[in-house]
Amino acid sequence: MNSPLITLTTDFGEEDWFVGTMKGVILGINSGVRIVDITHQVPRGDMRAGAYALMASYRFFPLGTIHLAVVDPGVGSERRAIAALTPNGIFVGPDNGVLSWALHQETILEVRQLENMKWCKCPVSRTFHGRDIFAPMAAYLSLGKGFLNVGRKLRRIERLPWPQPARTKKGWRGEVLYIDRYGNCMTNLTATMAEETGGGSVRVARRRVRLGGFYQSVSAGEAVALVSSVGFVEIAINGGSAAQKLGVSVGTAVELRF
Amino acid sequence: MNSPLITLTTDFGEEDWFVGTMKGVILGINSGVRIVDITHQVPRGDMRAGAYALMASYRFFPLGTIHLAVVDPGVGSERRAIAALTPNGIFVGPDNGVLSWALHQETILEVRQLENMKWCKCPVSRTFHGRDIFAPMAAYLSLGKGFLNVGRKLRRIERLPWPQPARTKKGWRGEVLYIDRYGNCMTNLTATMAEETGGGSVRVARRRVRLGGFYQSVSAGEAVALVSSVGFVEIAINGGSAAQKLGVSVGTAVELRF
Amino acid sequence: MNSPLITLTTDFGEEDWFVGTMKGVILGINSGVRIVDITHQVPRGDMRAGAYALMASYRFFPLGTIHLAVVDPGVGSERRAIAALTPNGIFVGPDNGVLSWALHQETILEVRQLENMKWCKCPVSRTFHGRDIFAPMAAYLSLGKGFLNVGRKLRRIERLPWPQPARTKKGWRGEVLYIDRYGNCMTNLTATMAEETGGGSVRVARRRVRLGGFYQSVSAGEAVALVSSVGFVEIAINGGSAAQKLGVSVGTAVELRF
Repeated sequence: MNSPLITLTTDFGEEDWFVGTMKGVILGINSGVRIVDITHQVPRGDMRAGAYALMASYRFFPLGTIHLAVVDPGVGSERRAIAALTPNGIFVGPDNGVLSWALHQETILEVRQLENMKWCKCPVSRTFHGRDIFAPMAAYLSLGKGFLNVGRKLRRIERLPWPQPARTKKGWRGEVLYIDRYGNCMTNLTATMAEETGGGSVRVARRRVRLGGFYQSVSAGEAVALVSSVGFVEIAINGGSAAQKLGVSVGTAVELRF
Repeated sequence: MNSPLITLTTDFGEEDWFVGTMKGVILGINSGVRIVDITHQVPRGDMRAGAYALMASYRFFPLGTIHLAVVDPGVGSERRAIAALTPNGIFVGPDNGVLSWALHQETILEVRQLENMKWCKCPVSRTFHGRDIFAPMAAYLSLGKGFLNVGRKLRRIERLPWPQPARTKKGWRGEVLYIDRYGNCMTNLTATMAEETGGGSVRVARRRVRLGGFYQSVSAGEAVALVSSVGFVEIAINGGSAAQKLGVSVGTAVELRF
Repeated sequence: MNSPLITLTTDFGEEDWFVGTMKGVILGINSGVRIVDITHQVPRGDMRAGAYALMASYRFFPLGTIHLAVVDPGVGSERRAIAALTPNGIFVGPDNGVLSWALHQETILEVRQLENMKWCKCPVSRTFHGRDIFAPMAAYLSLGKGFLNVGRKLRRIERLPWPQPARTKKGWRGEVLYIDRYGNCMTNLTATMAEETGGGSVRVARRRVRLGGFYQSVSAGEAVALVSSVGFVEIAINGGSAAQKLGVSVGTAVELRF
């Protein structure tokens, strides 16, 4: 299984040369691989935001894609580097939970700890494993080198807790997990829960927001709750920032009501 | 005619996973296509800025390139999705005018409304047609699938008004259409109009600015008007932001004088 | 020697269409070349920052890569455009020093002035040589067209002064050369100098900072000096911005002490 595609999700930004050098290392190993940036603007060290971005996007890539996510405040410390094989592809990154929300939706066939030093860029720096460990690993895997060669098999990986919505008398209680550049607030409430309420509403920050179909289904400046393109309930304002106008941030409680 | 190139112009930003998933969808359909980002930082919902960026750049791509522009505040509403065939390539996007300034410079051979649901990513979300409709359409077109398969032929498309400069006693009156990241102010006054004035000057925000050849043709901190790399008169400050220092914004009147 | 890779380092930003059109021009000439962005967010006209980014990254690309750097406030003026051949690849850009820190680390085999007008995008604008001169030159070079065809040989190029650290009684005195998006401060003090001090410390902005191995080798919020992934001493704060918290900027003196 020769994967022709590597995706990158990091908090490295685009101001410096970090992402570019990772690509240089990858293309030096596999000159034929395609590289797609998911985002490099994960807030610094924010594993949850990185995990959400990866979870929201990986399904839209071809089978066999290698997803590399590096949000890694513990670089150089004892945290492990892992690769997880699933029916959809391979997930590579530090074992700090950044891969876990995507893997939560997958059947993990095998997880291995990166130990194969022949697959590293030597000497390995202590501050840039994205370039010296993760990029070459992803590149060698993209060449179709056996997953067995990564290193020893692991039984457990670190997981970020996924906040399960709770059933209430009136519906479901969840929370905001991610806020996008538009200020749209993505929750953990699912499309199925929203359907259950049968055209109900959402309560957030002491406001009631109607369930609608799309952004312009309400007037300009008004709030609407809808099922996002990722499959979860999202709170938005037509032409504005829901996060700002409603005073919502990651962690804010959201209730779906019948 | 197999186009090997798709360009992307959007207001999706690079903070989230939106652009990456569009690329995943495209490469899942045509793994050999090349994708080039024009920009993803069009101000949110600003069709004119998107239209200007596309108009300013499309001519520099090879014949047959597919230009996909998604600035689409009306996503999910009744606005149509279109593809326009010209001798230079194919333009794909919502029918809200974002394609119209580029098409204004082209001979349109045919415009069709996207109707072919086999070319969509199903189920189609109501908030992310960039991923579910436009990306797959561009990808199928890049495979050389017949333009006929897009959907029914259209006779009219939505157009953003292009502000024509007006002849005055003293020269030409136009306006600022776009301000770039440097604060350079791009107008609708053409190179030909500037030549007509024979080394004249520009009047903007109650200031007179000399016509020059390049940024450093004036001293640091001074204003200069020149013919931009796109072919229109541009007002700049050597080493500074003309928009800021002269108090110019999109829509500000600019006069070319003999 | 057919180079399949072109890197781009510019101050063009990603807000507008500038980088995209350069890629369109390149792919119109060599549809098979791979293009990798190092960064487009060099501060406007900051040749030193551009030179540092190129120096820090070029070694991680395959042999024969063509590195194109355009930080070019003098565009349109008399400054020359050059191409430099080294055992590692080809460096293309304006002759204003932006290439010089990378070339400082290389054996220059030959430098030539760009004169071959057949390799330019005509008509050449006076404000966007990135698109009209540098992009096509890099593209023709990537096709394996002889380096001889660039233009006349040069004996000297412009160089940005590289600030050599000075020996002091107590160790070495250097300075901050670059600050990255995290606020990490990169100096001109080398790994060898740091080793010499045998686990000493760094003095910067009236503070003493211990030498450590990686960011989390100190508690959250504390400062650490370490050998960066580029091989120079770097001052960082675990989870924070060293530049901000210590009041350090480019040019700030840094002393390595035994």
